[in-house]
Amino acid sequence: MSDPVRKTALAEGGEFDLIRRFLARAPLGDGVRVGPGDDCAVIDGDIAFSTDLSIEGVHFRREWLSPSEIGYRSTAIALSDLAAVAAQPIGVLVSLGCTDADIAEAAEMLMDGVADALRACGASLLGGDLTRSPTALIIDVTVVGRVHKPVLRSGAQPGDSIWVTGRLGAAAAAVRMLQNGRVPGDDARVAFAHPVPRIPEARWLAERSVMHALIDLSDGLLGDIAHIAAASGVAAVIEEGAVPVHPAALRVRGNREQLNLALSGGDDYELCFTAPPGAVEKVQAEFESAFALPLARVGYIEEGSGVRLRSEMGAVDDVIAGGYQHFEENAG
Amino acid sequence: MSDPVRKTALAEGGEFDLIRRFLARAPLGDGVRVGPGDDCAVIDGDIAFSTDLSIEGVHFRREWLSPSEIGYRSTAIALSDLAAVAAQPIGVLVSLGCTDADIAEAAEMLMDGVADALRACGASLLGGDLTRSPTALIIDVTVVGRVHKPVLRSGAQPGDSIWVTGRLGAAAAAVRMLQNGRVPGDDARVAFAHPVPRIPEARWLAERSVMHALIDLSDGLLGDIAHIAAASGVAAVIEEGAVPVHPAALRVRGNREQLNLALSGGDDYELCFTAPPGAVEKVQAEFESAFALPLARVGYIEEGSGVRLRSEMGAVDDVIAGGYQHFEENAG
Repeated sequence: MSDPVRKTALAEGGEFDLIRRFLARAPLGDGVRVGPGDDCAVIDGDIAFSTDLSIEGVHFRREWLSPSEIGYRSTAIALSDLAAVAAQPIGVLVSLGCTDADIAEAAEMLMDGVADALRACGASLLGGDLTRSPTALIIDVTVVGRVHKPVLRSGAQPGDSIWVTGRLGAAAAAVRMLQNGRVPGDDARVAFAHPVPRIPEARWLAERSVMHALIDLSDGLLGDIAHIAAASGVAAVIEEGAVPVHPAALRVRGNREQLNLALSGGDDYELCFTAPPGAVEKVQAEFESAFALPLARVGYIEEGSGVRLRSEMGAVDDVIAGGYQHFEENAG
Repeated sequence: MSDPVRKTALAEGGEFDLIRRFLARAPLGDGVRVGPGDDCAVIDGDIAFSTDLSIEGVHFRREWLSPSEIGYRSTAIALSDLAAVAAQPIGVLVSLGCTDADIAEAAEMLMDGVADALRACGASLLGGDLTRSPTALIIDVTVVGRVHKPVLRSGAQPGDSIWVTGRLGAAAAAVRMLQNGRVPGDDARVAFAHPVPRIPEARWLAERSVMHALIDLSDGLLGDIAHIAAASGVAAVIEEGAVPVHPAALRVRGNREQLNLALSGGDDYELCFTAPPGAVEKVQAEFESAFALPLARVGYIEEGSGVRLRSEMGAVDDVIAGGYQHFEENAG
């Protein structure tokens, strides 16, 4: 990268408006190649960082996940932000807030889950903090990685195709069932409890210079592609019929509901990237064979702004608010 | 540093026992020069990290601190861990958990306080996370710095003198008064609400190769020197009569109580280091003049283990448990 990307534009929405106000007043000095707003910051020396805070009752429930699953999932989700700029993980710092009751057993099981996520990608536990929390279990994972040429949200160009890895909506289907007091199928539960950060996949694509822009799917395809569109100053069109809906989401009743889970359910942690026409097709078979993971073209980039959804009948709708927002009701 | 310091020994105590168990099972790969257990981890490329989690009701109370003071203090305390290895700050990542009520106003004021702490040492806001918290305000600050030769806890040698910057016990005196419903004096309140990480002081001493071992005083002198003793495999002797008690602590009733605030009150965020005999004396006047900050020799290192307190009458007592421990009652 020649020019530093000082502050990346975010899509509209309550929590992003507040973050925008924070960033407007915060200092940003020398030595920062990629400033806040993208999936990771990158400083001189090719070191990338991101942090991800999970709080009991907001991001997870103990009835849904075991302590080791909470530890694994929080760490894997944070590591996914390294995948989202095609960085190689070095390690993590884990800040843990535990109730008195958790200290005896749950805290160690949770850290075993953290260690599992680290081993899966060859990363180290670099440090952390441990403190008492009055009520909720709190885990904040800061990830550290190395990347020479980060693939950012801001590189999408008109004419690019939009691609995703894997199939979408399974984790959201699991959450929907758990919320309704039902037991999700194994595939849905694994997608929710054991997301796999797409680190080697992102590195592989970056080494072949396939991608113009990249993000990981945490809030849902519509919400996350909106960040690429905003950061790149372009419009994104998603083609409904091309979205790869996960079989677990296809077992949910109603075609519209299935599609919604895949478009806006969130928690997929697949990669979403843009690439010039034809670039992915050249390597698609090799990628899918190497990783046993499908690649699907789900739309395209054009001039303009925002996100549009194109139905199989050809109707085009603006997407007003896609993706999960933490403070939707009372902000902005 | 030639040899990597893989895992640093911690002093005894409930929370440290648990951290020890975490670390025993966590992966630690290549490229990590200083692993967990010291004030910062350091990876190849001279990058240092640490993280510090603060939770409302445990680490601060809103009746005691304004939102911007909470933001400033949390950040300054985290930056103090960079001072504790003589690293130069690059930036921080801030994870913020806010109640719905905080989003309107408190969150922005808090981030203004974060920005104040960053500006004071030329550091950047690199990123962060913002999420809803059900009840408590939560702030986790990860600091990133640069250091070529970190000064660690593990370098103390028998014969070294033990030194501290500044005067101790003022912040603890403020907390004591606030807990008793009284209003602390300005000097005590500033020491508590506006700690100054001793970054240029640590860099200055490191550039002159004065220090063998270094830590910042967060839990209190007795608790923190115990970490240096454990990590270095030596014993520390603190001389009661040499401890520089802050005037704000001297206004508290009772000689024993004044000394306790300075020895075990915590929250000082001064530097504590060991140095060979005579090394500090050569630069002491220049240091004190440059920083308007006193240096005091408070004891010495000898062979053995643990911490001993030597009274002005010459009696020597083993220190059983010094410093604040989060899970003292129910762990270990």
